[in-house]
Amino acid sequence: MTKRAHNFCAGPAALPTAVLEKAQAEMLNWQDRGVSVMEMSHRHASFMELAAQCEANLRELMQIPANYKVIFMQGGATAQFSLLPMNLLAGKTQADYIDTGIWSTKAIKAMAPYGSANIIASSQTGEYLTVPQQHELNISPDSAFVHYCPNETIGGLAFDYIPDTGDVPLIADMSSVILSEPIDVSKFAMIYAGAQKNIGPAGITLLIVRDDLLGKSRFDTPPIFDYQKQWENDSMLNTPPTYSWYLASLVFEWLLANGGLEAMAKVNHAKAAALYAAIDNSQLYSNKVNKANRSIMNVTFTLADEALNSTFLQEAEANDLLNLKGHRSVGGMRASIYNAVPMESIQALISFMQDFEARYWNK
Amino acid sequence: MTKRAHNFCAGPAALPTAVLEKAQAEMLNWQDRGVSVMEMSHRHASFMELAAQCEANLRELMQIPANYKVIFMQGGATAQFSLLPMNLLAGKTQADYIDTGIWSTKAIKAMAPYGSANIIASSQTGEYLTVPQQHELNISPDSAFVHYCPNETIGGLAFDYIPDTGDVPLIADMSSVILSEPIDVSKFAMIYAGAQKNIGPAGITLLIVRDDLLGKSRFDTPPIFDYQKQWENDSMLNTPPTYSWYLASLVFEWLLANGGLEAMAKVNHAKAAALYAAIDNSQLYSNKVNKANRSIMNVTFTLADEALNSTFLQEAEANDLLNLKGHRSVGGMRASIYNAVPMESIQALISFMQDFEARYWNK
Repeated sequence: MTKRAHNFCAGPAALPTAVLEKAQAEMLNWQDRGVSVMEMSHRHASFMELAAQCEANLRELMQIPANYKVIFMQGGATAQFSLLPMNLLAGKTQADYIDTGIWSTKAIKAMAPYGSANIIASSQTGEYLTVPQQHELNISPDSAFVHYCPNETIGGLAFDYIPDTGDVPLIADMSSVILSEPIDVSKFAMIYAGAQKNIGPAGITLLIVRDDLLGKSRFDTPPIFDYQKQWENDSMLNTPPTYSWYLASLVFEWLLANGGLEAMAKVNHAKAAALYAAIDNSQLYSNKVNKANRSIMNVTFTLADEALNSTFLQEAEANDLLNLKGHRSVGGMRASIYNAVPMESIQALISFMQDFEARYWNK
Repeated sequence: MTKRAHNFCAGPAALPTAVLEKAQAEMLNWQDRGVSVMEMSHRHASFMELAAQCEANLRELMQIPANYKVIFMQGGATAQFSLLPMNLLAGKTQADYIDTGIWSTKAIKAMAPYGSANIIASSQTGEYLTVPQQHELNISPDSAFVHYCPNETIGGLAFDYIPDTGDVPLIADMSSVILSEPIDVSKFAMIYAGAQKNIGPAGITLLIVRDDLLGKSRFDTPPIFDYQKQWENDSMLNTPPTYSWYLASLVFEWLLANGGLEAMAKVNHAKAAALYAAIDNSQLYSNKVNKANRSIMNVTFTLADEALNSTFLQEAEANDLLNLKGHRSVGGMRASIYNAVPMESIQALISFMQDFEARYWNK
């Protein structure tokens, strides 16, 4: 039996063991062709079939309407929010942004060279513990789009509603929440997500774009960064990251075989509820996020005595509970509990936390 | 024994079997940590060590001088030649380009939104069968750089010398020739290469940049596309494609363990010589490239009767000789014989070609 740790990494994150076992089995000899899938031409019929089936499976999982295109690119969410203004300003000079934390802020900064980023609402006044409400969203009809991050990976702060932005296209960075539960894709103009949480390994990025948003790029947008051009070329304008694509296809198959997003949602909510309950019931650990806005994917918590942080992390790693350190910008702890993290890992973490508290705090 | 075909794909290309076996063995449990390397945080000390060792090994292999930075990015060569003008024009309005085929031409087109691309010399008049000579290169001192492609993957056309561009920085797209033999890095201002030929799987891109070229980007260059910013952040400005990086590190280890680039050069020249000799000695196959400019990595050939093409490819695939179809833009055949393609694959191809010729041509 191969050793598998409990992995709470925020990304690159845990992948389903069954997916890795399949990838391992066919690493040198895919489809009995005598080559690894990563050694196969992306133009070969066998890989084109893989790509087509991958899209079909994703469309089934997310119930993506026909007027949305599925595009794979490179560069993660950071490349994407940098490319949004190039692709979507379409002659306008401003866009609206909702600020709920570090990833929202990065997207806001990326707008600077191209136009005005209006911060129409911010969680800053609430110390990033709650999200702005719908009635606070003062959207300008002159804005090219409204951008937000439904789940802030670093702060563990999540929207409990989908903003209604009327006729202004709503763009969501769903990197850390995509595929965690069913969503109504038709409420969005565009969804994008780096793969390295719930999709696959780092190095491939998913875009789901409503077709009326295509073909509006600035004149100086390189074709490789142009949504329309990538779609016209089936995301193969140049050599795509085929192995990452293949692993994403295995993850989608795994999701379908395990009940799809309804089943994932059920487990994910149970996992998060168990972990937040353990935190709330302790004297040592705390999470101050407004309960309705607590992320089901990224559970942050602090220790009442920060001097215990390094001991906590060392002992956790010694117990095969990995990557619990909070992001360097906020400190504390973070357990990212994406689809591939099973309930037994949550239970192992809770047991460790309780034992640690008993030994170091409630002595 | 795992089945391994003879794989002549131009990219994503064959990888060394030993590299894939190592990756397979530690797919689910890397360094006995109970996680795949693709599930590990790129900020974890274990991955940072991998990245540092990877760079050290590459520096040893290529004898990279200390005043050159090694940077890993995403997007392949296509992203890079699109980003060159953003990063390197530095207030100038033009750059010089040598045209030797399809990849050169793509780079030339990518310059258009930013300034003038002067085609200072072209192989077009020679039907892309020879490269321009040094005395034909009319380099302007007002040009920000000179760009060329030392080995045209599609045409199988290679430079037999390194252009002397004086004080104007020389930029080379070495995607399909890097690591195939020793080169003098100090003759270049910048080298870039998509990984999917001699480095690793598609999805990671290598840049070797002389330090005086850094910090000159246009004001509107997104940080993720800015060489200086990527270097400052150790190529981890955002989550890098960690698994591709890991595989590249295994390839560099394999190269060092197998005698480095001198040993590769010896085998590569022998492989190419054997295959070109078989072509030249046949009645059915031909290659018209000027002998001094024949690529040692991408061997193109046509059949005297094009009606035999599909039979040739079908029979080749049935004999586990894969991906021999020439690029769709030029037709014919192409055998890409990168470092990971062993001499025995060349011998198998030659045997098949001779047998095919005996049966269909010299009957």
